[in-house]
Amino acid sequence: MEEAKAHTREDAMGRITSRKKVVHIAAAGHAGSRAVRRLDSLAVEEPLEIRVAGEPLTVTMRTPGHDVELAAGFLVSEGVIIHREQFASAIHCGGPGTGGAAATPGAYALGASAVDGGNTYNVLDVTLAPGTPLPDPARARHSYTTSACGVCGAASIEQVSTTSAFDVSEDPLVVDADTLVALPELLRSQQNVFDKTGGLHAAGLYDAATGELLVVREDVGRHNAVDKVVGWAVLNGRLPLTGTVLQVSGRASFELVQKAVMAGIPMLSAVSAPSSLAVEMAESTGLTLAGFVRGTSMNVYSRPERVREGVLTPA
Amino acid sequence: MEEAKAHTREDAMGRITSRKKVVHIAAAGHAGSRAVRRLDSLAVEEPLEIRVAGEPLTVTMRTPGHDVELAAGFLVSEGVIIHREQFASAIHCGGPGTGGAAATPGAYALGASAVDGGNTYNVLDVTLAPGTPLPDPARARHSYTTSACGVCGAASIEQVSTTSAFDVSEDPLVVDADTLVALPELLRSQQNVFDKTGGLHAAGLYDAATGELLVVREDVGRHNAVDKVVGWAVLNGRLPLTGTVLQVSGRASFELVQKAVMAGIPMLSAVSAPSSLAVEMAESTGLTLAGFVRGTSMNVYSRPERVREGVLTPA
Repeated sequence: MEEAKAHTREDAMGRITSRKKVVHIAAAGHAGSRAVRRLDSLAVEEPLEIRVAGEPLTVTMRTPGHDVELAAGFLVSEGVIIHREQFASAIHCGGPGTGGAAATPGAYALGASAVDGGNTYNVLDVTLAPGTPLPDPARARHSYTTSACGVCGAASIEQVSTTSAFDVSEDPLVVDADTLVALPELLRSQQNVFDKTGGLHAAGLYDAATGELLVVREDVGRHNAVDKVVGWAVLNGRLPLTGTVLQVSGRASFELVQKAVMAGIPMLSAVSAPSSLAVEMAESTGLTLAGFVRGTSMNVYSRPERVREGVLTPA
Repeated sequence: MEEAKAHTREDAMGRITSRKKVVHIAAAGHAGSRAVRRLDSLAVEEPLEIRVAGEPLTVTMRTPGHDVELAAGFLVSEGVIIHREQFASAIHCGGPGTGGAAATPGAYALGASAVDGGNTYNVLDVTLAPGTPLPDPARARHSYTTSACGVCGAASIEQVSTTSAFDVSEDPLVVDADTLVALPELLRSQQNVFDKTGGLHAAGLYDAATGELLVVREDVGRHNAVDKVVGWAVLNGRLPLTGTVLQVSGRASFELVQKAVMAGIPMLSAVSAPSSLAVEMAESTGLTLAGFVRGTSMNVYSRPERVREGVLTPA
């Protein structure tokens, strides 16, 4: 699979983390502090410009890698695509030696390697399938979330509720409380592959039917990590994501609830706190929102009947 | 002072946190889990549309409160203002019963109270002083950070370095390592006033000359917390912020370094990790960037000569 190959290439290029010499100052007892120079890993943050049919749509500060998924997931959040077939191809462009776009849906040509002369891999041009309407440029201005809001939260909630192609409120998902509290650790165990830096957010998709974590993605931006997960799903023809739980490493904002609903995910579980608007939108759309999911407890803010109380082994 | 009054009013309105009944599920030994309904505090997240002379500039998801500072700080980050006099007035608009703008620089009329009929306080219109150029609409599209980037980080770093009115590289600031590691706790002690939710980022400004924390602001968005701090400073005529340290509760992104440099702050100290681009930009502009500042140690990523090693009391 082309995507998997791209992933390996980016890892090999060391673009997800970079090494940097830092001055580490630490307490050293009564003798005073000790400053040592040592190497430290940093989470790479670089801008990605997403274009559709050559037109700039948005620029996001992201961790390189899974850029095609990121673009696809972003387009799902914007309400532009829901089927794999609508995403015809994507190509990294902007540098010399740029290759051609792939013709087959789901296969993505990548530009020339960064080695051979200056392609920064920071511009990705998406070609949609014929008949797929281009994103509204007015909406693109501040990205979907913010342009939809305008004046008050209620308007934006209503817009999202009516815009999503999927209704998550009827999803019959039920998850054991014990399973839920174990998800953050499961996410972290898979995140450790890349995150030596302490600087990356993670998002993962749990399939309640199989008990599997389907995919885990990391990024300096939490919304990007979720876009990458949703992008993975749409490119694999898995939307709507009925029967799944979106687990995130940090807080649950309005934007993350919106992204879940647009992808047909019936449950969002966060390690930290949700915001007020996240809860309002979860209630309005019928998504189950869990927060402070850690250790042996959690809060459920909406549609708690999807969480089945279990034994919840004490720590 | 009008700002302080607005702040109090917003607290009284309970718009920074809101209460919500949640289902709390916790382990309860061998007897199985226990689910109880209880009240929980949520960090309020609402959109704020910032307008300049009636034209929409950006929409940000923010925690209500200190909206005038948020707008002023955003305009500093955009390179639009650096003097208090350039910010003529600001008014919450968009609902019925909207009041008039204040004529005196630094005094801000607020719209009618939310009680008397529908003003959501989610649109703020800024009037700049005559002769202050309006923000470039092209730049407003994705806000300064992202539009400036375009293709690669290097271009955006250069743009910021040349755009800032202030040169932080020559700032003679020196801070004791002991002082620095104590800042996160100091920030947290002041943050506790509002943050019962676990959902807010905090930013504070430390004055090395007086040993004081000048201002602390909180928000669901870390960039908003920093904009509020910088906005407080510009509205009090304190730019450039020579001799200060910007302390933030989370990670240090490219965007936060940029905001510090635009305000003339020579040092950014973060509790968590910086990104690669944050470090590159700190090096390029001559800002001191410290990360993982917690407990009894820290990493210094750029210009470490501004951190004076001290005794660093072991934990």
